[in-house]
Amino acid sequence: MPYQAPLEDYKFLFEHVIDYAHVTSTDRFSEASMDVVSSVLSEAGKLCEDILAPLQRNGDTDPAVLENGVVRTSPGFAEGYKAIAEGGWVSMSADPEYGGMGLPMAVTTAVNEMMSAACLSLQLNPLMTQGQIEALEHHASEEIKALYLPKLISGEWCGTMNLTEPQAGSDVGALRSKAEDNGDGTYAITGQKIYISWGDNDFSENVCHLVLARLPDGVAGTKGISLFLVPKKLPDENGNPGVANSLNVVSLEHKMGLHGSPTAVMQYDGATGWLIGEPHDGMRAMFTMMNNARLGVGGQGIGAAEGAYQHALYYAQERKQGKSPLADGTGTILDHADVRRMLSTMRAEVFAARAIALMNAVAIDMSTATNERDWRARAAFLTPITKAFGTEVGMDVANMGIQVHGGMGFVEETGAAQYFRDVRVTAIYEGTNGIQAMDLVARKLMDGGEAARALISEMEQFVAGRSDDLAQPLKEALALLADKTEWLVQQKDMNDRFAGAAAYLKAYARILGAYCHYRAYVCDHGQGARAKLATFYINTLLPEHIALLAQATQGAKDLYALTVEDLVA
Amino acid sequence: MPYQAPLEDYKFLFEHVIDYAHVTSTDRFSEASMDVVSSVLSEAGKLCEDILAPLQRNGDTDPAVLENGVVRTSPGFAEGYKAIAEGGWVSMSADPEYGGMGLPMAVTTAVNEMMSAACLSLQLNPLMTQGQIEALEHHASEEIKALYLPKLISGEWCGTMNLTEPQAGSDVGALRSKAEDNGDGTYAITGQKIYISWGDNDFSENVCHLVLARLPDGVAGTKGISLFLVPKKLPDENGNPGVANSLNVVSLEHKMGLHGSPTAVMQYDGATGWLIGEPHDGMRAMFTMMNNARLGVGGQGIGAAEGAYQHALYYAQERKQGKSPLADGTGTILDHADVRRMLSTMRAEVFAARAIALMNAVAIDMSTATNERDWRARAAFLTPITKAFGTEVGMDVANMGIQVHGGMGFVEETGAAQYFRDVRVTAIYEGTNGIQAMDLVARKLMDGGEAARALISEMEQFVAGRSDDLAQPLKEALALLADKTEWLVQQKDMNDRFAGAAAYLKAYARILGAYCHYRAYVCDHGQGARAKLATFYINTLLPEHIALLAQATQGAKDLYALTVEDLVA
Repeated sequence: MPYQAPLEDYKFLFEHVIDYAHVTSTDRFSEASMDVVSSVLSEAGKLCEDILAPLQRNGDTDPAVLENGVVRTSPGFAEGYKAIAEGGWVSMSADPEYGGMGLPMAVTTAVNEMMSAACLSLQLNPLMTQGQIEALEHHASEEIKALYLPKLISGEWCGTMNLTEPQAGSDVGALRSKAEDNGDGTYAITGQKIYISWGDNDFSENVCHLVLARLPDGVAGTKGISLFLVPKKLPDENGNPGVANSLNVVSLEHKMGLHGSPTAVMQYDGATGWLIGEPHDGMRAMFTMMNNARLGVGGQGIGAAEGAYQHALYYAQERKQGKSPLADGTGTILDHADVRRMLSTMRAEVFAARAIALMNAVAIDMSTATNERDWRARAAFLTPITKAFGTEVGMDVANMGIQVHGGMGFVEETGAAQYFRDVRVTAIYEGTNGIQAMDLVARKLMDGGEAARALISEMEQFVAGRSDDLAQPLKEALALLADKTEWLVQQKDMNDRFAGAAAYLKAYARILGAYCHYRAYVCDHGQGARAKLATFYINTLLPEHIALLAQATQGAKDLYALTVEDLVA
Repeated sequence: MPYQAPLEDYKFLFEHVIDYAHVTSTDRFSEASMDVVSSVLSEAGKLCEDILAPLQRNGDTDPAVLENGVVRTSPGFAEGYKAIAEGGWVSMSADPEYGGMGLPMAVTTAVNEMMSAACLSLQLNPLMTQGQIEALEHHASEEIKALYLPKLISGEWCGTMNLTEPQAGSDVGALRSKAEDNGDGTYAITGQKIYISWGDNDFSENVCHLVLARLPDGVAGTKGISLFLVPKKLPDENGNPGVANSLNVVSLEHKMGLHGSPTAVMQYDGATGWLIGEPHDGMRAMFTMMNNARLGVGGQGIGAAEGAYQHALYYAQERKQGKSPLADGTGTILDHADVRRMLSTMRAEVFAARAIALMNAVAIDMSTATNERDWRARAAFLTPITKAFGTEVGMDVANMGIQVHGGMGFVEETGAAQYFRDVRVTAIYEGTNGIQAMDLVARKLMDGGEAARALISEMEQFVAGRSDDLAQPLKEALALLADKTEWLVQQKDMNDRFAGAAAYLKAYARILGAYCHYRAYVCDHGQGARAKLATFYINTLLPEHIALLAQATQGAKDLYALTVEDLVA
C-alpha cells in the first residue's frame, strides 16, 4: 500500500508544539522559515512516496548479499540511493561551505523520519553518513574536511562507524584494534569490527570508515582510544578513489530483519587511516557521531511506526468482518472498539514520539546557533529519551500493526511483519535502550537534575492556570515526575538509579508526550482531530506514568536480593 | 543451549499455589497423586530436553515445504513426533476407554508447556490433535469414537481444525463452505479453508480434519454451521487408511515465524465427511475444541517465554562486558541492574502466567470431575485470561530475551530471535487476544460478574488478616479490581466494555499473578528465591494494574470521538 508523507503533522508540530520559532529567530537559521521548511518537507515527501516506499519490500525479499567479497545490494537500492544523494537529502544540515544546505536539524529529523518510514534499510545508509559528516566537521583537520566532506555531502561517498568488536559491545573501552604511526601522517589500522551497518555497497564510489582503535601508547579503557578515517579506496592526488585499502568485508550477518542493510564483519589488515581529532581522544569525536545517530535512530523508530500505522489503517479500512456495533458503521473492522483502540494508540504514540524527537532537534539547533549551556543541556537530556522512546514506540506500534491485521499480520506478503522485524534492531544499535536509560539517570542527571527540572518547569508553566479536563491530570503527572526526579538525583548508589532507569525514561517520555498532545489540544481549542487524539492519550496512556514512576524509584534492593543461583534454579 | 524442564516450579505450584489437592480429592482423579504427577512430568521433561529441544532450530532453518502437493516436514520432526506419540504425550487427558491416560488437564498443561518451550512448531501438532480428541469425545457418535479416537490418541493419526476462510476470520459465521447429504450417512464437503495449522505432514498415517461447513438448510451466521470430520484418507473396512479423500493442500503460508509448522490453505472438493454432533450445532462442538486449544495456546506462550528466558539467562551468565558494579560481581552482564531487571521480570512473568494456566486447568479438571456450575464458570472465566496473558507474556519475555542478547539477539544464529518470531502468532490464532478480551468482558461477565467476583473473594480471603509488606498492596489492588469489575458489569453499551477489554484482562491477570506470587511468598515464609521473586513482582509489576484499570474503565467515548477521517488525515 502507498506511503503518504505526514506533512500536515510536521507543519502543525513546527508551528504549534515544538517552538520552532526559537530556531528561526537565530541568525544561524534565520532563513529556514516555515515556507522553506514546508517546501523542503514537501519535496522530501515526494521522494519518499514515489521512489523509496516502493523499495521497502525489496530489501526484505532480496537481501543484500556478499558475493566473492563484494556486497550486492537489493534491487532498486542503487537507484533509490542515487535519488537521495542527488536530491541533497544526505546532507540537509551539513555545512554549506562544503556543499551542504545548512538547514536546521529539526528539518533533517523530519526528513530522516519520512525516509525511515518509506524504506528503513536504505535510509540507514545516509543516516550513517550524516553522523560521519558531523564528526568530521567538528573534529577533522582542514585538509581532511576539504577532501572528504564534499564527497560525503554530495553522497558520492558513504560513511560508516566502526566501534564494536566481539568482546567490546556496550563496553567500547574493551576494544583491541590497533593503530600504528606510519610516520607519513597516516596510520596502519589492524583489527576486526562487527555489526558494521552498510559496511559496503555497490552504488557509492567509496566507503569511508570511522574506526576506533588504540595507539601503542594508548591506555586501557576508553581513554586510550583514537579515531581514524579509513577509506575503502585511498584517494589519489586528485582526491578521486584510487587503490584499494587493506580492508575487506569478511561476512554479512543473517539478521531477523533489516535485510536490505548489509551488516558487515570488517577486517582491517594494516589499512591506511588518518587520525581524526587528538590521539586518545577518539571517544569524544565518536560521541558527536553517536549523538547524531541516536536522534536519528529514534527517528527510525518513529518512521517505522508511521509506516506500520498507515499500513494497518489501510488494511482496517478494507477488511470487512463481523456485524458493525455502530448504527452508521462502515462494516469494516475499524468499527470495532478494540481495533480502534489499537489504531488510536498507534497514532497517538507516533504523534508523541515525533514531537519529542523534533523538540530534541530544536534544542540541538539552538545549541548550534547560540552555544548556550541550557540548550546544550536540553539537547543532551532529550537525546536518550528520543532514542529509547522513539524505538520503543516503533516496536509497540509495529506489534499492534500486526495484531490489527490478524492472521494476515503473521504472513510475510502483507508487509506488516517486516516493520516489526526491521525496527527491532533500533532498540539495540547506537547504544541499547538500556544504555540510553543509564545515560539518562547517570550522566544526564549529573547536573543535580537541573536540565530535567528545567523542562518540567517549562511544562508546568504552560499548563498553569488552565482548568480544562486535561490540565489537571497533566499537572498531577508533572508534580509526581518532579518529585521522583528528585528521588533519583538523591541516590548516591548508582545501581539504585540504574534499577529504575528504563522506567524513569519511559515515564518522562509519557509525560512529555502528554504535554505535546496537550499543546495540540490547546491549539485546537479542545476540538478537532488533534484535540480528540490528545484527550485519548491523556485519559488512556498518561496514567501509565504512575506505575512507571513507582518502578523507577524501587531502587536495586529487590533486584540484587535475587542471586544468580535464584535466577538459575 | 540446552533446555531444562522446570520441574521444581511445577511441583511447587501443584503443591502450594494452584490447589491441586482439590483435583486429587475427586473420585475421577484420585489416582493422579503428586507422586504420579512428579513421575509423569519428569518423563515428559526428559523427552523435551533430549528429543524435542534439539529440533527447535531445524524448524526455523529448514521450514516445512510443499513439494508436488506433499508436505515435507523439517529434519528430525518425524522422529520427534514419533517420540511424542509413542510416549503417549498426545493424549494424557484422553479417555482411557480409547487408550488415553485419563490424567488431569493440569498435568497435560504442564507437559504441553514443556513441549512448547522445547520445540513450539512441532508441539502445535499434538495440541491440535488433543483438541480434536476432546471434541470427538464430547460430540461424536459411538461409531466415530470407536474408529477414530484410538488412532488419534495413539498419535498414529493427527487432527486439525478448519474454521477460517478468506472472508471469515474472527467472524466465523461468514463462512461459505458447503456440505451436502450423500444419503449414505456421509456428506460431501466443498470449500476453501485457510490458516490450517499442520494441514498435512509426512509422518502420520492419516490427517483428520474437523471442518465447519453449512448444510443447504443452514441459516446464515453461526447458527447454521455444522461440523464434519473429513479424513485425508478414507478408512477402509478394517479402519485403516484407504483411498484418498477429495481434498488437498493448495499452498503453505510464508510466515514470520513458526516455520516448522506448515500452515496450509486447504481445498475440499466434495470431500467425504461425517457429521459430528447435531446439524447446525457445529459451533458448540468447535468451542469444545477451541476452549481446549485456547488453554493450550496460552501454554505455548508460557513455554516460549520459558525457553527465551533460559536462553537469555544462559547468555547473560557467559557474556562478560564492562566493569562490574558489584564488589563480588561475576564480571558478566548479569551484574548490571538493567539486565537483572529484564531477567527478573522475565522469570517473574513466567511464574505468574504459568500459575494462572495451571489454575485454569484445575478449574477444568474440577468441572470434569464434579460438573459443578461454579467450577465450570471458573474455567470459562480463566480461559481467555490464560490465552491472552500467556501469549502476551510469551511476546514480552521473548522480546526482552533479544534485548538481553544485545546485537547478538538480532542475529538469527543465536536463536533468541526465533522465540520472538515464533511466539508472535500465538496472540493471533485460536481467537486473537482482542477476541479473548471481548469474550471476557461480555460473555464471561454475563453472569453479572459472579465468576469474576468469586475469584476476587477467594484471593481476598487468602490475604485477609495478613500484615506483611506485600499484603497491603495486594489488598488494595483487589479492592480496586472488585470496584472496576462492578463498573464494567454495569455498562449496558457493550462498546464501553469492549473499549477497555484488553486492559481489564491484563489487569485481572496482573493481580491474579500477584496473588500466585504472594502464595509462594507465604509458603516460602517471606524468604528464599520464590519469596524474593514475589517481592520483586508485587513491588515492581503489580503497580501497573492502576493504569490498566483506569484504561479499562474509560468507556468508548474517546475512541469513537475520533472519526475514521480523523485517523486517516
